[in-house]
Amino acid sequence: MNTIGTIYRITTFGESHGPAVGGVIDGVPAGITIDFDAVAAQLARRRPGQSALTTARNESDAAEFLSGFLGNTTLGSPIGFIIRNSDTRSSDYDNMARLYRPNHADYSYDAKYGIRDHRGGGRSSARVTAPLVVAGAIARQALEQRGIAVQAYPVEIGGTRGTIEDMEGAITQARRSGDSVGGIIECVASGVPAGIGEPIGGKLHAMLASAMMSINAAKGFEYGDGFAGAAARGSECADLPYSDSDGRIRTRANHSGGIQGGISNGEDIVMRIAFKPVPTIAIPLETIDSDGNAATLAARGRHDPCVIPRAVPIVEAMAAITIFDAMLLNRCAKWNI
Amino acid sequence: MNTIGTIYRITTFGESHGPAVGGVIDGVPAGITIDFDAVAAQLARRRPGQSALTTARNESDAAEFLSGFLGNTTLGSPIGFIIRNSDTRSSDYDNMARLYRPNHADYSYDAKYGIRDHRGGGRSSARVTAPLVVAGAIARQALEQRGIAVQAYPVEIGGTRGTIEDMEGAITQARRSGDSVGGIIECVASGVPAGIGEPIGGKLHAMLASAMMSINAAKGFEYGDGFAGAAARGSECADLPYSDSDGRIRTRANHSGGIQGGISNGEDIVMRIAFKPVPTIAIPLETIDSDGNAATLAARGRHDPCVIPRAVPIVEAMAAITIFDAMLLNRCAKWNI
Amino acid sequence: MNTIGTIYRITTFGESHGPAVGGVIDGVPAGITIDFDAVAAQLARRRPGQSALTTARNESDAAEFLSGFLGNTTLGSPIGFIIRNSDTRSSDYDNMARLYRPNHADYSYDAKYGIRDHRGGGRSSARVTAPLVVAGAIARQALEQRGIAVQAYPVEIGGTRGTIEDMEGAITQARRSGDSVGGIIECVASGVPAGIGEPIGGKLHAMLASAMMSINAAKGFEYGDGFAGAAARGSECADLPYSDSDGRIRTRANHSGGIQGGISNGEDIVMRIAFKPVPTIAIPLETIDSDGNAATLAARGRHDPCVIPRAVPIVEAMAAITIFDAMLLNRCAKWNI
Amino acid sequence: MNTIGTIYRITTFGESHGPAVGGVIDGVPAGITIDFDAVAAQLARRRPGQSALTTARNESDAAEFLSGFLGNTTLGSPIGFIIRNSDTRSSDYDNMARLYRPNHADYSYDAKYGIRDHRGGGRSSARVTAPLVVAGAIARQALEQRGIAVQAYPVEIGGTRGTIEDMEGAITQARRSGDSVGGIIECVASGVPAGIGEPIGGKLHAMLASAMMSINAAKGFEYGDGFAGAAARGSECADLPYSDSDGRIRTRANHSGGIQGGISNGEDIVMRIAFKPVPTIAIPLETIDSDGNAATLAARGRHDPCVIPRAVPIVEAMAAITIFDAMLLNRCAKWNI
Repeated sequence: MNTIGTIYRITTFGESHGPAVGGVIDGVPAGITIDFDAVAAQLARRRPGQSALTTARNESDAAEFLSGFLGNTTLGSPIGFIIRNSDTRSSDYDNMARLYRPNHADYSYDAKYGIRDHRGGGRSSARVTAPLVVAGAIARQALEQRGIAVQAYPVEIGGTRGTIEDMEGAITQARRSGDSVGGIIECVASGVPAGIGEPIGGKLHAMLASAMMSINAAKGFEYGDGFAGAAARGSECADLPYSDSDGRIRTRANHSGGIQGGISNGEDIVMRIAFKPVPTIAIPLETIDSDGNAATLAARGRHDPCVIPRAVPIVEAMAAITIFDAMLLNRCAKWNI
Repeated sequence: MNTIGTIYRITTFGESHGPAVGGVIDGVPAGITIDFDAVAAQLARRRPGQSALTTARNESDAAEFLSGFLGNTTLGSPIGFIIRNSDTRSSDYDNMARLYRPNHADYSYDAKYGIRDHRGGGRSSARVTAPLVVAGAIARQALEQRGIAVQAYPVEIGGTRGTIEDMEGAITQARRSGDSVGGIIECVASGVPAGIGEPIGGKLHAMLASAMMSINAAKGFEYGDGFAGAAARGSECADLPYSDSDGRIRTRANHSGGIQGGISNGEDIVMRIAFKPVPTIAIPLETIDSDGNAATLAARGRHDPCVIPRAVPIVEAMAAITIFDAMLLNRCAKWNI
Repeated sequence: MNTIGTIYRITTFGESHGPAVGGVIDGVPAGITIDFDAVAAQLARRRPGQSALTTARNESDAAEFLSGFLGNTTLGSPIGFIIRNSDTRSSDYDNMARLYRPNHADYSYDAKYGIRDHRGGGRSSARVTAPLVVAGAIARQALEQRGIAVQAYPVEIGGTRGTIEDMEGAITQARRSGDSVGGIIECVASGVPAGIGEPIGGKLHAMLASAMMSINAAKGFEYGDGFAGAAARGSECADLPYSDSDGRIRTRANHSGGIQGGISNGEDIVMRIAFKPVPTIAIPLETIDSDGNAATLAARGRHDPCVIPRAVPIVEAMAAITIFDAMLLNRCAKWNI
Repeated sequence: MNTIGTIYRITTFGESHGPAVGGVIDGVPAGITIDFDAVAAQLARRRPGQSALTTARNESDAAEFLSGFLGNTTLGSPIGFIIRNSDTRSSDYDNMARLYRPNHADYSYDAKYGIRDHRGGGRSSARVTAPLVVAGAIARQALEQRGIAVQAYPVEIGGTRGTIEDMEGAITQARRSGDSVGGIIECVASGVPAGIGEPIGGKLHAMLASAMMSINAAKGFEYGDGFAGAAARGSECADLPYSDSDGRIRTRANHSGGIQGGISNGEDIVMRIAFKPVPTIAIPLETIDSDGNAATLAARGRHDPCVIPRAVPIVEAMAAITIFDAMLLNRCAKWNI
C-alpha cells in the first residue's frame, strides 16, 4: 500500500511541511557499489528552485543515509534515509487551512481520514517523491552496472510538441498569465534483458503503470503504440521476429514497446506518461471550505507552473525501481540457473 | 504477483488448453448474498462464440464453485472455483509449437521460463481472464448492494468513433480482410463513496491502472481528462468544489475523473483503456522458430478479429474488483468508526 | 493471509463437507520434474482411514492437477489442483449445527463471521491441510533434487516418550476410553545450504514457526535447544565454529538448531512442534448452543484419537514449503551471482 | 520480509553502530491521540544501562518522529522515526572483524551476503528491536483506548522459577562467573474481542509466533497449554463454553490460551516465549575466523548477561503490534458492519 515494489521495495514517509521526508529501501542485494554523488545529482534534478521554470522554494534536498552500507557498498540490509525539510514557510498556507483547493486532494483526504495536514498539501505534496528518487538512483546504478539505461524526456508541454525551446516557451507563457500547463513524458529503458515481468498479476507494463501513476499529477500511461495503436490494424503493427547476426532474437519493429504478454522481449521498453496542469494557479478560482462556505482562492505560495521539468527524473526513478525489482523477481523463474 | 488485489484478492490458474482455468478468491467478507445466475451472465458476456464478431471457439464457461458459500451466502472463507476447458482443438496449434507468433508472448515466455505450453497461447491466452470475470461478478454484486454501479462500453474501434454500428462495421471489415483492429473502452463507476484509495502506493488510479493493464492486449490507461488533458491549462480543468442542496460536497466539473490525490472524491470514476489489434491474423507474417529458422505464419485457428467486444465485461470486472478492494482497505483508515 | 509463503506460495480453499478442497501454488520455478506418484504418496500418509489409530473416514484424497505442467515438468505458471471431498456424512453433524464444541473454533468463527458451515468443522477442519501436503510434496521434490531432505517423527505422545510401540499404546488406550491424546513431533531438515532466511522479518525460524502454527491443533514451536535451552548457561550451549576437512565451516554442536540470527548456517535444522489432544472425544462434555442454552455433547462422528500420526507428513510439508520458499527468496540476497 | 504486520506494519532499518536505527509505521488509522511520553517510557524499559542486570552501554534511545502526526494525533499517513545511535565504541569490536563469534549470526550473514558490518553485530544486534518497541508503544495506546491490556513478565530465568529475587539472583550469578543465562517470558493480552485472527494463513497464534520469533535470541513459542498440554488428555483440557451473567459467551477454563482455530474467543490470550542465554560471554571460547584460522574469543565489550529483563517490553510490543494488526484486518471479515 505505502510500499512500492515486490523484492526491491521503497516505503516512504513524510509530509511537505513536517521535519523530514524519507524512506526505507528493502530488498537491496548486497555488494552493489554506490556513488553517493550520483544519488545527490538525481535529487538535484528533482529539486525545486533550479530555474525560472520551477517553484522558487529552495531546498538542498540532501539525503542522509542512516543504514545499509559498509562504506559505499550495500550490505543487503535496509537502507534508511531522511531528507530534512527546510524553507517551509507554513504561514503561506495559513489562509488555506480549511479551504478545499480545486483539483487538489484536500477534500478527498478529509473524506478518508477526517483530519488533514494542510500545510503545503501535507502527504499529498509532490515533495513526497524525493524519497522515490533516492530509491530510483540506487536502482539505476545497479542497472547501469548491467548495461541497462533509463532515460526520460518531455515530448509535449502545454499542447506543444517539438523543440525544447517551444516547450519551455509554453511554460513561461503559462507562468506569466498566472496559469499552468501539463504535458507528456516519454521514457525509454534500453538493455533490459528478455524475460522479466510476470504473466498475469505483475505484468511488467502493469508494474510500470502502477509505478508511474503513483507520481503526483499523472493522469495516463501507455507503452509501445499505446492509445494511438488502438486505431491501427493488426497487420500494421506486427513486430516481426528475426535472428540477428549474433543469433540474438529481435523484432523488426517495436510497436510492442519491448513487452509482450507482460514480459520483456529484449527490445527497448518505451512508455509515455501524461501529467495534468498544476492545479495551484494565481488565477482566482471559486471553491468552498470544509463547512461548505463559498470562497475564492488564488494561490500565493511558491508553485511550479508545470510539473514536467521536475517529473522527468521521477519518471526515470520509477522506471529504474520497477525494472530492477522485476529483474530480481525473475531470478526465481527457473529452477536450474 | 499472480494475485490481484490486497484485501479482496483473486489468485488464478490455468492454461488455455489444459483441463481447466480457475482461481481462489480471498478476502470475501462474510454475509454477501450472491446470485449465481448473475455470475454466469457476466461469464457469458466474455464467452467466445457469441456472434460473428468473436471467435468461433465455443465454451460453456460454467464456473463450478467449490467452497466459500453456505447456500448462496458468503462464509468469509476463500471461494475456490474452476471452469473446465472444452472444445480445445490442440491440433490447430501443432504447427506453431516452435514458431514465434509476432506480437505474441511466445519468445518472451521462452526467455523467461525455458519451457512453454504453446497450445492456444498457454498461460498467455485471453482465456485466463475468465476467472477474473468471476471475481469481478462477485465484487460487482456486493457493490450494487451499496448503490455502486460499474459500466464499460467501447468508445473507439479500429480508429472509428461514433455509433455502435460504425464500430461493428470496422470489426467486420477487418475480419473479412483477414486482419484485426483494436480500440478503446471507457469505464464509469458511479456511486463510489469519497475517501477510497491510498495516498502514495495504492493510489486508486494506480490500482485501476495496474488491474486494467493486466488484461490481455491492453496498451494504455488514462483517467479523467487523461492524455488529452495534458494539453489543457490549469484554469481550464479546475473542478470547482461546491456544496450541493443536500450539503454534500461535489465538484462542478469532473476533469479529475473522480479521483484526487489517489483518493476518490465521490464523483463518477471515469477511465479509458486502449487495446491493441489482435496479433493473430490470417494475413501471412514473416517470423522465425525458436532455432532462428525463418518461417511464414498465417493463423488458421479460431480467433477474434477484435478484443473489444469481449474485453468490455473484463474491464468492468477489473473495475469492480479494484473498487471493492479499495473500499475494504479503507475500513482501516480511521480508528474511530 | 490465506496464503502461505512469499515466493513459493500456496493459497488454499475448501470446507470439510463442501464439494472439494484445493489450492493454487504460485512461484513454482519452471523446469522441475515432478513424480506425481510421490505426491500421491505424501497425500496418502495424511489420509484418514489408514489404521486403527486414525479416523475411519475414508477418502481417496486424489489430487487432480489442472494447470502448471507440461507433461510432468513445471511451466513456471500457477499449479491449480482440487481434491474432491467424498464420504462426507453430513448428517453425522446435524445435531451440532448450533452447538459450540469445546476447544473447537465454533464460537470464534461465529464471532468473526456471523455465519458458519458447521459440517465437519467447515473451514476449521483438518481436511484443509490436504492442499498444504500437495504444495509440500512438490517443494520436497525440488529440494531433494538439491540434496535436501526433510524428515519428521513423533517424539512424545500422550506424555509417553520412547518407542513407537509405547506411543502407539498411548493412542490405543485413549481411544478405548473415548478420550484423546496430544504429542510432540520433531522435524529435521538436512542439507540446507547456509545463508537462507532473512534478518528481521522473515527470520527462517519465524517463517517455520508461522508455518507450523498454521497446522490444526499446533500449540507450540521451538527450534534448536528451544524451551529446555532457556535453562542452560551460555557456556554450555556454544556452537563452536570450526573448519572441517573440506574447508567447510561447521559448528561442533548444534544447540542453535541450524539457524543463527534467523539465517541457516548449514547445520541440520531441528525443530519441534507441540500438538494438543484432539478436542472431539466420546466422553460427554458440557457446553452451550449459540443461544446460550446448556447442552451436553459426546462426539459420535468419526474422529482421530490423536493428530500426531497424520500430522507428521503435514509437518514435513510445511518445512519443505518454507525452506524452498526461503531458498528462492535468497536468490536476491547478492547482486553478483 | 523486513516488514512485520499486514495492515499495521513496521518496516525497520539500522545497524548497531551506524548513525541511527528507525522505521516507518504504516497502516496507522487516523485519529489516534498519542502520548509521546508513554512511547519514551516504553523505549526506556528496553534501553540498556539501566541496572546492574543489563549492559553498561548507555543510550538515550530518544525517538525523533518525523511524520504522521498533526500535533499528537495520527494523520493516517506513515509515521517515520529515527533513534540515533550514540556511545558506539566501535573499537571494542576491532578484534572481531573477521572472527566468527559462537552462536552469533556472523557466519550465517557472511554466507548470505558475502559482506558484513561486524561492529556490534550490525543488523543482527538486539539494537534493531528499538524501532519495534516504538511501533508497539503506539499500537498499545490504541489498544488501551479500547480496554485491551498487554503485559509480559519473566516466569523462568537460568532455570529458576519463582520470585523475582531468585530470578535476578540467577542473572547476577551468571554475570559474576562471566557467563550468561536464558529464560522464559509469559505474556497476557486481556480484553481482546472475540473474532480476530484468520483461519489458515494468519491464524492469530501463527502471527504471534512469527512476531515473537522475530525477537533476538527467541528459541520457542507456545500459547495456552503449549508443550505441557501435549501430555494431557482431551478430557482434561476441554474449555467448556458457558453463558455468563451478562449473556456473554465464555469458557470455564482457558487451556486454549484465548485462541481457537486461529481466532480469538474473548478469553485472555496467554503465550510464553523461550530465550536462549546471551551468546557473548567473558569465558574464552574456541572459534575460527572467516579464513578458517583457529582463534580464541572472550567478550570484552559491554553485554547483557541475560536478555530477559530487556526482552519483556519487546515481547509486549510484538504482542501489541500483532493484536492491533489483527483487529484492523478483522474489520473486513463481515460485509455488513
